[in-house]
Amino acid sequence: MPKIWTDTIETHRQAVQEAAIDATAELIAEHGLLSVTMSQIAEKAGIGRATLYKYFPDVEAVLRAWHERHVGRHLEQLAHARDQADGPRERLEAVLRTYALIAYESNRHHDTEIAALLHRGAHVTKAQQHLHTMVRDLVAEAAEAGELRGDIAPAELATYCLHALTAASALPSKAAVLRLVKLTLSGLTASR
Amino acid sequence: MPKIWTDTIETHRQAVQEAAIDATAELIAEHGLLSVTMSQIAEKAGIGRATLYKYFPDVEAVLRAWHERHVGRHLEQLAHARDQADGPRERLEAVLRTYALIAYESNRHHDTEIAALLHRGAHVTKAQQHLHTMVRDLVAEAAEAGELRGDIAPAELATYCLHALTAASALPSKAAVLRLVKLTLSGLTASR
Repeated sequence: MPKIWTDTIETHRQAVQEAAIDATAELIAEHGLLSVTMSQIAEKAGIGRATLYKYFPDVEAVLRAWHERHVGRHLEQLAHARDQADGPRERLEAVLRTYALIAYESNRHHDTEIAALLHRGAHVTKAQQHLHTMVRDLVAEAAEAGELRGDIAPAELATYCLHALTAASALPSKAAVLRLVKLTLSGLTASR
Repeated sequence: MPKIWTDTIETHRQAVQEAAIDATAELIAEHGLLSVTMSQIAEKAGIGRATLYKYFPDVEAVLRAWHERHVGRHLEQLAHARDQADGPRERLEAVLRTYALIAYESNRHHDTEIAALLHRGAHVTKAQQHLHTMVRDLVAEAAEAGELRGDIAPAELATYCLHALTAASALPSKAAVLRLVKLTLSGLTASR
């Protein structure tokens, strides 16, 4: 097959997959994670059920693809927050605040069986490692600039931050989340 | 039936259940959570399989009973640590250190399917609420004594502490766990 053909086919395949994932995202927003079916996805995406089954063997596979995209977008959001801020401490604070707000917003998905299943995926482990590295580097940068405590290694400080901020999912308001971010940061600067 | 009889029967029932749970605890220590069977439990407990089935319908039920006892003992350990310490800040620190060490020790059980199942049980939710209340009261006591920051409510500070300390399960050594406890506490005292 000439390359132009394989490119076109690949583009088409990607478009169909994106449509299915978009449809899934809408269905999740409307009805929650647990009640999505293959028929609904096909109908919403404007494709046949047979076509959908060519790309995804079952609902779990579409949900996993949706979740991978979802997690990928959160990482982009965090990198964006980092790159918008000026100065080492500000960059760290922007990333931690964005992370806490994401944890707060995704709170409502977290108590279902499906969410537990998705969170065990390899893409989540990879994303968590990526995030840990991002935060560790920002902590190291701020510590070198003398803006954070220097008595504990950056990797340990990053582990502390990311766990402390998961508390956001148990908090009742955005104001409480912002207090949590301040509180977590003040642990990092205590021996300054 | 006279009361002395029902008491004796109740004592016997409890003894059999305790024996089954003890046997399960030993089997878990030897082989891990996933490979425990009803036959092994009965053999180790020195009771017949039929007797075991009178008390527990399946392995999951014995594991749940074991986990309830396990969680209950952790709560006793935390209350003991609190009652041994002198002074509001010392009491809080003792409880947080004990909690972090428990999280660190139980790390190795945490990535199995069964552990996920056990952790969804109602007894875990109840234990978490109990622990949150214990820490919240200690925080309130220390804040009233002027030993902690007063700008954030004790319940929010408790939520922060308990989440931050779950980082212990991701740390490589006890020394790192003790640094985490110091770090978490220093967040609580930053605006002192």
